[in-house]
Amino acid sequence: MTRNATHDPARRSWVASANAPGADFPIQNLPWGVFSEGDGVRRVGVAIGDLILDVTALEADGVLEPAPGETVFAAGVLNPFMALGPAVWGQTRAALADLLDEKTGERALPLVPQSAARMHLPVFVRSYTDFYASREHATNVGTMFRGAENALPPNWLHIPIGYNGRASTVVVSGTPIRRPLGQLKGPDDTAPRLGPSQRLDIELELGAILGTGNPMGQPVTTAEAWEMIFGFVLLNDWSARDIQLWEYQPLGPFQSKAFGTSISPWVVTREALAPFRVAPPARETPLLTYLAEDAPHNLDLALEIDLAAQGQGPHTIARTNARHLYYSAAQQVAHHALSGCAMETGDLIGSGTISGPTPDSRGSLLELTWNGRDPLDLRGTPRVFLQDGDSVTLRGHCDGPYRVGFGACEGTILPAPPAP
Amino acid sequence: MTRNATHDPARRSWVASANAPGADFPIQNLPWGVFSEGDGVRRVGVAIGDLILDVTALEADGVLEPAPGETVFAAGVLNPFMALGPAVWGQTRAALADLLDEKTGERALPLVPQSAARMHLPVFVRSYTDFYASREHATNVGTMFRGAENALPPNWLHIPIGYNGRASTVVVSGTPIRRPLGQLKGPDDTAPRLGPSQRLDIELELGAILGTGNPMGQPVTTAEAWEMIFGFVLLNDWSARDIQLWEYQPLGPFQSKAFGTSISPWVVTREALAPFRVAPPARETPLLTYLAEDAPHNLDLALEIDLAAQGQGPHTIARTNARHLYYSAAQQVAHHALSGCAMETGDLIGSGTISGPTPDSRGSLLELTWNGRDPLDLRGTPRVFLQDGDSVTLRGHCDGPYRVGFGACEGTILPAPPAP
Repeated sequence: MTRNATHDPARRSWVASANAPGADFPIQNLPWGVFSEGDGVRRVGVAIGDLILDVTALEADGVLEPAPGETVFAAGVLNPFMALGPAVWGQTRAALADLLDEKTGERALPLVPQSAARMHLPVFVRSYTDFYASREHATNVGTMFRGAENALPPNWLHIPIGYNGRASTVVVSGTPIRRPLGQLKGPDDTAPRLGPSQRLDIELELGAILGTGNPMGQPVTTAEAWEMIFGFVLLNDWSARDIQLWEYQPLGPFQSKAFGTSISPWVVTREALAPFRVAPPARETPLLTYLAEDAPHNLDLALEIDLAAQGQGPHTIARTNARHLYYSAAQQVAHHALSGCAMETGDLIGSGTISGPTPDSRGSLLELTWNGRDPLDLRGTPRVFLQDGDSVTLRGHCDGPYRVGFGACEGTILPAPPAP
Repeated sequence: MTRNATHDPARRSWVASANAPGADFPIQNLPWGVFSEGDGVRRVGVAIGDLILDVTALEADGVLEPAPGETVFAAGVLNPFMALGPAVWGQTRAALADLLDEKTGERALPLVPQSAARMHLPVFVRSYTDFYASREHATNVGTMFRGAENALPPNWLHIPIGYNGRASTVVVSGTPIRRPLGQLKGPDDTAPRLGPSQRLDIELELGAILGTGNPMGQPVTTAEAWEMIFGFVLLNDWSARDIQLWEYQPLGPFQSKAFGTSISPWVVTREALAPFRVAPPARETPLLTYLAEDAPHNLDLALEIDLAAQGQGPHTIARTNARHLYYSAAQQVAHHALSGCAMETGDLIGSGTISGPTPDSRGSLLELTWNGRDPLDLRGTPRVFLQDGDSVTLRGHCDGPYRVGFGACEGTILPAPPAP
């Protein structure tokens, strides 16, 4: 992917709020989402400044026609559009930028204030896979549970380790998250008991959304994998550490991560992010050839986690950057398809928790508090794990000649349900 | 669920082949599938003897109307029908049995010979979860890799252990399975290499298909879980043992089980299987209350694995029974939903490999050959794992006053693709 006119830093929009310094959604971004207004009908839109351009309406009016003879945006979900492939994604993005360009001049377009819209899941999440691609995160967790000498599993520097997650509970930012019930067993207990998780945690991640797939039995290169990615979202992989500790051997995390995964509502396209690509961290050992990259696929994307206890304002508890990831999304997808596993339109690929090299750049409470040893100071109150009523917000943006922002990914904790 | 007229052993069909001794599909079975003929259009049908009753046509003709004003069978997949819930499943089953009953008499119905039909995936598999519910299997594998004293993981007698599988590569019986590529590392290798799996295995399982779900955040009882199950299929969870051994720590099996999962084409309904329920094995330790069952949910279902090397006839390598499972499908689903995880129409729940107490009742080559120590005798040739061209067929049936059969679940191994 090369830079093109949609990356021109000089471009400005006739939507004034898109040109404000620090705006997440300038004309160079144009992220995709699904929204509704009072009538509840789900429509596809792109964010521009503090407005949404109603793309479903543009298609209905014949202004856009990404698939001649079909209406891909009427579905109220991005999957049919994504399935058309990267050439159409690029053409549509260029057409939308032209419509919104200051040089073209203001015109009558179906624009909706973001403040008047309700956001929905932008895609039907076909399958959700979560990786473990931050070396700092894997090292922190391994040090806590296995000691510093055995921190990284032996396969970690060779394989982008991942596991299949649960697609049915991926929800859009703003959806409350109910504290999960589960089997809990303390180190001194002789048997587990049933109860609400007492060690409810967050995981700051980046999610890649696949626009196209590969046929079963046909692996792909990292270059092909990169082309399959439609865009990225912020992702909070809510985790119940106590349930996880008791259940995860020998087949991995299951119910401890199945109760909710939040994603931000705006899918920032791979094309919008292309100018912010950076080289990955140095490789300690050579990777196998199928993981080789002909171009950098890491993203220089600043991230932060805000935590607000009930009735309090937000408190930033971590700042990090997606550039620290040891394996890129392209490498993760190439590994995922290596066995012949079919990737599909709408697949969500979590990066794994993103932690940086410093203590305040860790992407989970488990790491930030070092398994409870060092509680956070939350406006004078020590805090280890999440309490009912807590609200967590992830934010992210790329900075350069202009800013490409992701908006926010928020979730508030509700009390556990009664036992069944 | 109580016995009803559809369980009457005296019932016979005017379709003569349904009444033959040993027929898998008598009038008491009526399993659901999706088929096509020459035109390729997918239609829903039920098997009766060696014929298929075209239910999509019955609905179009107004003979059946499970959802007044809607056509649930036109989709060519069972999901819309399943979403209507158990009352409608039972009414429709009773109506179909009446149409086919000898007492009603032969009539003009849209019947297609099974020999002229091509079978397809009966459901859109929304998510695929695989459990590990056979104590004998878990003990065998644990003994091989951790020694007899640590064979069962400490959580095993308390939790129905499971992991999320990959829905995109669940395929119908008859679909070839391509040998997967993966990272392989022998015990003496200093680094992994890329290559085709050399330890390709089968796993004999039973799959439960969920017809209805639960809302996110709302656990269910085992009785509710049982009502959510539409029916069962045979399931072969193809596994690459060498890829698995190197990748599975710490997050569980991933690409080693992502390249293909075969299911039998006919979904045998929970209602047809109700008369064959039996009590589960004795519990060594009490289960937590949410796993209590008010009725037995295990199935007395005889199972076998046939292996045919290329150019040879089939050879039965194992015979076992689903009654050995320590955890029922109802318990698995109740555990799955305990955290608030939403179950959905079309979810496929694998039981895990079903092994019995004797050496010839083990459900995988890993166990049957005791990790290669005791090769099978395949018509004079020693055999450990699968070779290209091998065909594996699973079969299953319940026996009583009549037989309720599952038909066959077959897959043939193709050579690995070139490296990407």
